[in-house]
Amino acid sequence: MHEKFSIVLGVATVVAALSPALAGEPITLRDMGSFHIGGRVVEISGKPVRELVLGAGGVPAKIDPNGLYQVEQMYVQYFLPQNRKGKFPLLMWHGGGLTGVTYESTPDGREGWLNMFIRKGWDVYNSDAVERGRSGFAPPDVWTGEPNFLTKANPFERFRIGQGAGSWNVDSALMKVNVGSQFPVEAYDNFTKQIVPRWTTTDGAIVAAYTALVDKVCPCVLLFHSQAGGFGFAVAQARPDKIKAIVAVEPAVAGDKAQAGKLKNIPTLLVYGDYIPLDSRWPKMRQIGLDYAEAMRAAGASVDVVNLPEVGIKGNSHMLMMDKNNAQTADLIQKWLGDKGLVE
Amino acid sequence: MHEKFSIVLGVATVVAALSPALAGEPITLRDMGSFHIGGRVVEISGKPVRELVLGAGGVPAKIDPNGLYQVEQMYVQYFLPQNRKGKFPLLMWHGGGLTGVTYESTPDGREGWLNMFIRKGWDVYNSDAVERGRSGFAPPDVWTGEPNFLTKANPFERFRIGQGAGSWNVDSALMKVNVGSQFPVEAYDNFTKQIVPRWTTTDGAIVAAYTALVDKVCPCVLLFHSQAGGFGFAVAQARPDKIKAIVAVEPAVAGDKAQAGKLKNIPTLLVYGDYIPLDSRWPKMRQIGLDYAEAMRAAGASVDVVNLPEVGIKGNSHMLMMDKNNAQTADLIQKWLGDKGLVE
Repeated sequence: MHEKFSIVLGVATVVAALSPALAGEPITLRDMGSFHIGGRVVEISGKPVRELVLGAGGVPAKIDPNGLYQVEQMYVQYFLPQNRKGKFPLLMWHGGGLTGVTYESTPDGREGWLNMFIRKGWDVYNSDAVERGRSGFAPPDVWTGEPNFLTKANPFERFRIGQGAGSWNVDSALMKVNVGSQFPVEAYDNFTKQIVPRWTTTDGAIVAAYTALVDKVCPCVLLFHSQAGGFGFAVAQARPDKIKAIVAVEPAVAGDKAQAGKLKNIPTLLVYGDYIPLDSRWPKMRQIGLDYAEAMRAAGASVDVVNLPEVGIKGNSHMLMMDKNNAQTADLIQKWLGDKGLVE
Repeated sequence: MHEKFSIVLGVATVVAALSPALAGEPITLRDMGSFHIGGRVVEISGKPVRELVLGAGGVPAKIDPNGLYQVEQMYVQYFLPQNRKGKFPLLMWHGGGLTGVTYESTPDGREGWLNMFIRKGWDVYNSDAVERGRSGFAPPDVWTGEPNFLTKANPFERFRIGQGAGSWNVDSALMKVNVGSQFPVEAYDNFTKQIVPRWTTTDGAIVAAYTALVDKVCPCVLLFHSQAGGFGFAVAQARPDKIKAIVAVEPAVAGDKAQAGKLKNIPTLLVYGDYIPLDSRWPKMRQIGLDYAEAMRAAGASVDVVNLPEVGIKGNSHMLMMDKNNAQTADLIQKWLGDKGLVE
């Protein structure tokens, strides 16, 4: 694995000159837009009709909850730069409890990876997983279980922004932030505004919609984060010929190791941030990714693993794409994609 | 009122040449990004702690539902064209059961009003109302009531796409579409994928977040649709000095007539589509807007009302911004904004 590190070691200090468009310069798009993809139609029956005023001062409307419903579709927004450099579309898939906002402006208002990779010349497709954000969610009884909500404290303590359980405090002066953290802690409250509820019983529907997206816009490069590790590797197993590279950013879960060999021709980069040895869960979660990577390699795949502190990039939380050094990690990823022949 | 109509009569046939950037030409942005605004923190207490695996194959996480939650924030995405022509930002607010996707690509994949008004040189801020889309929604017990879901049939029959109750059919050949409809009926299923659940008890929270947005980015022009008629006029009443013009697109509700005089200095355009006399609810809903307009005029406001069929633009559903002639109505609105001195 140390040999693999050497491929990107030292990259971070030399790549700034490679960026074709810098923050502050205009972004020129040959097109931008959005669509919904996938989903299915379900029937609900046997429920009473209600009359409901849908807005204060409005005219009552008859609401019959029985009928056919569209569910499990996925929202995708795309930006196609005029000066395209990426050889394939770049699909960005967010982690649990979040939406595509993950890759947009950072909580403290800097540019996120969406803008950065558009500026680097990639056709970027940014989506909200099924049941989150602009993908909507299904009526009661369609899915088992209830949506899950995160407290303000939860991601602070789980995402290696703070020093684990009990590190968040409503008084920011009393927060126990990881020493040297690159997370914009002063804007943590804004980050919590990005959180959306999630179900824990919809993985199949999520993978189905992502697969439909891959069938529509790929061949492509997948860049996914955290919970989407499970979705991204599963979709790559299902559509290995459509995936030209994978950038797995702190995958919290991985695919089925028995099927990892299907990814033998997909160059893959795993990126992990700082403070993992200090965390109660992340050593084990990283190991899940490393084990999957080893299974890929056993089948002949080229897999690089970068632990950022080992290449001199320190202070990263789980939300690498929002951290203050997010341009540096984006440049590292871009360099790797270039090394794999995916940049023109 | 007929005198008011004459201001824009015939506009639709001559404005094409005014469009500074056409579909197919690149869009150049000096910046794009997003943020969340507004909201409040609520405390939930007395509930049991659970341990939950948040993704298949993942490491169990302790989920303590007690604690502080961020709720009632609003998501806003902005696009700032390099060649700015609009003198103020243009805020687009969607209608009920929907999100900012309303203004993005149409269900059949054409450009929507978001792209069109960016191309016309407006700094556009497109948002998802509180509790919808990327704004997220609150844990149980924070709001009264349950979210409301729309069947596939419901908007077809209420939005004057079909000929009222019973006009939708799962077999598209059996649908009773309004004769001459400009709605892209062949992509109606895609439109239903844009629908998101909504509560009916959150109007105050929605107005609060919109007001916070106005305080952040205005003076500005408001363009709002359907349910947002209630929100837009209410916010204008609260911040009349911040609003330079209002474009109310088929407002389903309006503000408080007793306060309409506060809008006396805000030039206002109300736009209504076709088939209203044939509908069971829209004559009354239009009257709500017309009555509010009259109350504004009584205080000295300049209010124009355009019933599109009366100026030769026919076939429009409630979803004007998605109809096949959406460029024509966008041009009509742009011409009106220009006449009001709001375009450089």
